[in-house]
Amino acid sequence: MTAPIGLIGLGNMGEPIGQRILQAGYPLRVWNRTAAKAEALVQAGATLAQSPAEAVEPGGIVLTMVSDDAALDRVTHGENGLLAKLGEGGIHISHSTVAASRALAMETAHEAVGATYLCAPVFGRPPTILAGKLAIALSGDPAAKKRVRPVLEAVSGKIVDFGETPGAANVVKLSGNFLIASAIESISEACALAEKSGVDRRQFIDLMASTLFECPVYQIYGTGIADRRYEPFGFRLSLGHKDVNLVLGAAADADVPMPVASLVHDRLLSLMNRGHGDLDWTAVDIGVSEDAGLGEK
Amino acid sequence: MTAPIGLIGLGNMGEPIGQRILQAGYPLRVWNRTAAKAEALVQAGATLAQSPAEAVEPGGIVLTMVSDDAALDRVTHGENGLLAKLGEGGIHISHSTVAASRALAMETAHEAVGATYLCAPVFGRPPTILAGKLAIALSGDPAAKKRVRPVLEAVSGKIVDFGETPGAANVVKLSGNFLIASAIESISEACALAEKSGVDRRQFIDLMASTLFECPVYQIYGTGIADRRYEPFGFRLSLGHKDVNLVLGAAADADVPMPVASLVHDRLLSLMNRGHGDLDWTAVDIGVSEDAGLGEK
Amino acid sequence: MTAPIGLIGLGNMGEPIGQRILQAGYPLRVWNRTAAKAEALVQAGATLAQSPAEAVEPGGIVLTMVSDDAALDRVTHGENGLLAKLGEGGIHISHSTVAASRALAMETAHEAVGATYLCAPVFGRPPTILAGKLAIALSGDPAAKKRVRPVLEAVSGKIVDFGETPGAANVVKLSGNFLIASAIESISEACALAEKSGVDRRQFIDLMASTLFECPVYQIYGTGIADRRYEPFGFRLSLGHKDVNLVLGAAADADVPMPVASLVHDRLLSLMNRGHGDLDWTAVDIGVSEDAGLGEK
Amino acid sequence: MTAPIGLIGLGNMGEPIGQRILQAGYPLRVWNRTAAKAEALVQAGATLAQSPAEAVEPGGIVLTMVSDDAALDRVTHGENGLLAKLGEGGIHISHSTVAASRALAMETAHEAVGATYLCAPVFGRPPTILAGKLAIALSGDPAAKKRVRPVLEAVSGKIVDFGETPGAANVVKLSGNFLIASAIESISEACALAEKSGVDRRQFIDLMASTLFECPVYQIYGTGIADRRYEPFGFRLSLGHKDVNLVLGAAADADVPMPVASLVHDRLLSLMNRGHGDLDWTAVDIGVSEDAGLGEK
Repeated sequence: MTAPIGLIGLGNMGEPIGQRILQAGYPLRVWNRTAAKAEALVQAGATLAQSPAEAVEPGGIVLTMVSDDAALDRVTHGENGLLAKLGEGGIHISHSTVAASRALAMETAHEAVGATYLCAPVFGRPPTILAGKLAIALSGDPAAKKRVRPVLEAVSGKIVDFGETPGAANVVKLSGNFLIASAIESISEACALAEKSGVDRRQFIDLMASTLFECPVYQIYGTGIADRRYEPFGFRLSLGHKDVNLVLGAAADADVPMPVASLVHDRLLSLMNRGHGDLDWTAVDIGVSEDAGLGEK
Repeated sequence: MTAPIGLIGLGNMGEPIGQRILQAGYPLRVWNRTAAKAEALVQAGATLAQSPAEAVEPGGIVLTMVSDDAALDRVTHGENGLLAKLGEGGIHISHSTVAASRALAMETAHEAVGATYLCAPVFGRPPTILAGKLAIALSGDPAAKKRVRPVLEAVSGKIVDFGETPGAANVVKLSGNFLIASAIESISEACALAEKSGVDRRQFIDLMASTLFECPVYQIYGTGIADRRYEPFGFRLSLGHKDVNLVLGAAADADVPMPVASLVHDRLLSLMNRGHGDLDWTAVDIGVSEDAGLGEK
Repeated sequence: MTAPIGLIGLGNMGEPIGQRILQAGYPLRVWNRTAAKAEALVQAGATLAQSPAEAVEPGGIVLTMVSDDAALDRVTHGENGLLAKLGEGGIHISHSTVAASRALAMETAHEAVGATYLCAPVFGRPPTILAGKLAIALSGDPAAKKRVRPVLEAVSGKIVDFGETPGAANVVKLSGNFLIASAIESISEACALAEKSGVDRRQFIDLMASTLFECPVYQIYGTGIADRRYEPFGFRLSLGHKDVNLVLGAAADADVPMPVASLVHDRLLSLMNRGHGDLDWTAVDIGVSEDAGLGEK
Repeated sequence: MTAPIGLIGLGNMGEPIGQRILQAGYPLRVWNRTAAKAEALVQAGATLAQSPAEAVEPGGIVLTMVSDDAALDRVTHGENGLLAKLGEGGIHISHSTVAASRALAMETAHEAVGATYLCAPVFGRPPTILAGKLAIALSGDPAAKKRVRPVLEAVSGKIVDFGETPGAANVVKLSGNFLIASAIESISEACALAEKSGVDRRQFIDLMASTLFECPVYQIYGTGIADRRYEPFGFRLSLGHKDVNLVLGAAADADVPMPVASLVHDRLLSLMNRGHGDLDWTAVDIGVSEDAGLGEK
């Protein structure tokens, strides 16, 4: 009989990941800070754990999908943390987007108890996961990667192996988020120019997103910006600010100047300071529009 | 019998446009500063004109596809220019990317002789044209747009009408080129961060360009940047610099701050000053790589 | 008897210049678009002219101090402009801050009638002029510079000769204004950091402006920024925006990337678009403060 | 008899500080990692200590002037560090430029043993110190500030009290260094524009530094930049990079976007990556000049 998989963090990404694991026939133990969020998975057959540690099978496999560095620390370390229980031979698959330096520290801490930490950040949104089309960037120990492959294949449709460098897959995720954030800024600037020059914003974006930029980021975020629609539908601005901060942290660690990242960071921070942190990160367009003298939509 | 169409400017875009017109059965008169470039079209049935004016049928339709504002001025005005000959009822379809202020001046100059100037910049590359999939942004007088529609349909697969605002379609083209230029800068920054953090550049781009950014710009330019391949295959850096200059000019006219455009402008200019103007505009990556301390590829 | 000097443009800089000329014993003819502004000088002995041309002695010396390129064009060219009357042997001393390309065109236009155009932008404010301490940057024809020297010495306390390059002194003025604008931005950023870190802004500036930066720009503008006092006392923000635009124009002509100038340009433009154009250009601090989440002062 | 003062860190700033203390008649115990640098002070009457701890009088006063956060940690903590020995009632006057967050941690650590940590960064250079004209920004506990006042007056000519906020004076120092770094960037941009427009760089700077910007930063660094002289005479570029990094760190802590600081950071980092870290930070001009297409000086 297969050992149960642990899953910690049942937000809008963690929950569909759990569904995929159950559908593949694995026994699943789940934990979330707010237990109510576990309901759907429990009804689908998962077991509810009372602590991160309780979700873990010694020497087994545990997945985490939490919101930031601090949450990852909390569920990993300490008395009821997953690490002590996981122990020798255990594997921690970390799907969260955290600091590059955190990934390195995590790897060291896991090695110290004979366990393995794998970076496995994901690209996609809840519907992508349910459709089996999530993409996973993976880095870490080769033997561990081999062992967890069936689980990851249950969760995703595409796994890209970025080798053994500590935190490599995490940098991939941060770089991807940087590309999205900078596209949002550029699209907003282009829309401001278009509008003030007498061009219809939506027509402009529709042309771009059906030719040169016929891809999800320009289609989804581009349409939101063209329509000046900033209700959270993709990613919260405050999380975007956090991630661009992590990008600049990784850039400082690697001695890489990233002027567009700095510019986007300042934009996001000024919008946080103006009270727009809870909007979608397309709200970058609010700053661009105000700077351009475009009134309220 | 159909009146002959005039086509002025037979570079790598103009020539396939001419082929499409001939294939649609229109008589075609062509002119190019370097007559040798007309050879293929002449063999396919076009008539070689000795001046821009000679390519024009009074009251007819003439297309221009030249490299910059100065060239457009030269072929339009003056003794052998197209405008005097075009005269009352004639339509000038301008495919070139020029300053927004130029489009306005052109419209006025054409009205003065009873002719019409249509902005019709194109999105696509030579193979796109031959495949009938060119996209055209169009703006100007409604009656003229209606009359030239069959010709444009022969040339392209998608025509988007941006209304009557003078120069509107031209701003659309400039904004599109700005989006490309800023994507090139962002991709280069992301690749520098990836490489210095131990991530394979090409693997990173392949993942991005097959998920969030599955579109031509990220696939074509992204791959070029990942591989640090800067031989002209898309667009010459010096032309990119010219276009981003036009973007900033349009932004100044419209009182729109565009910080990413300014940043990309400075990047392109510094590469021009370092002697890289004849490379592809993916050579933005040379500047990013040198700033990051990445050696020669 | 000495030929009368012409003075065109009697704003807050032109008027004290006129006073200095009268004090030196020169006959003076003055013209201003709004004649009322000529009153003080007329009472002090100047003759009021009815047009720019009337202020000019053929072959004589005329000084202009107007607000922008368009005003300089108006008073120079046309039926009642100064140039036709000035003619052979005349010298036009231009104190205004205009585009570098304008200076070049002016030199050519003056040569065409046998006159000479000297760039002579000034550094200082009204009280500086009255105290005889104005600084003048000068460029143009050596013989003309020699002939006007006594007049310039009457007006100023320091004349720096920047040679014969067309427009050189004008670039000096623009570069100086760029240095001021960028200092204003930097001081504002530093004050925002200080304030949000618990440091008293005014104390911070007082320390800086009495040690490393013990000079007028940091003392005058620095104090204004520290106190968040933006009533026009130095230079109107809209004029600052105009001048930084001229800086970027000169930079484009000379193929020089100026990233700080671009950044300051965008800052000034966004404040114009927010309706702050009539404040002092220390109002850059409003944008910096809002971005930093500092409330109204 | 007066208790001996401890002085740790005898670099080009620490040594003249020691001389001033001896001249004021205080007994002085000194320590430096490289003992040879203590020679001049020992000859002038100081006692050489074998460890940081040995330089300290329990409950007394100790001054530190070291190169960075790590050095401050080393001399403070650990077996032979100063803190354990300093103990109850002791005061640590910290002259070094360190992270704002470090200042806070230091205050806490000192309180834990009953000692007091005062931030006392300095503005000036070695000759300024010897002339008794050093400026000191001071923050921390009022009673401690009162007790050390005579010592600080022996060392400096101007003491500005920035209150009790932890690390306030440290932020003042960082903000001041930011102002210098941004002035260096702006001066370099202005000089590039001047030179490519036919203006003599040195003449331009001489005019600026004798009028609007008649102060040490523009005179000393401005002249270095005008002459393209980058041998260390003010401050090493690598230290400038470190300090602008600390500025951005403090800005992140305080949620203040500082776009000019980000730009200057990227400039300094790209010059580090090009191997110019050991030059004076006026070498920012190398980057500006290369971007502008100005050849080697």
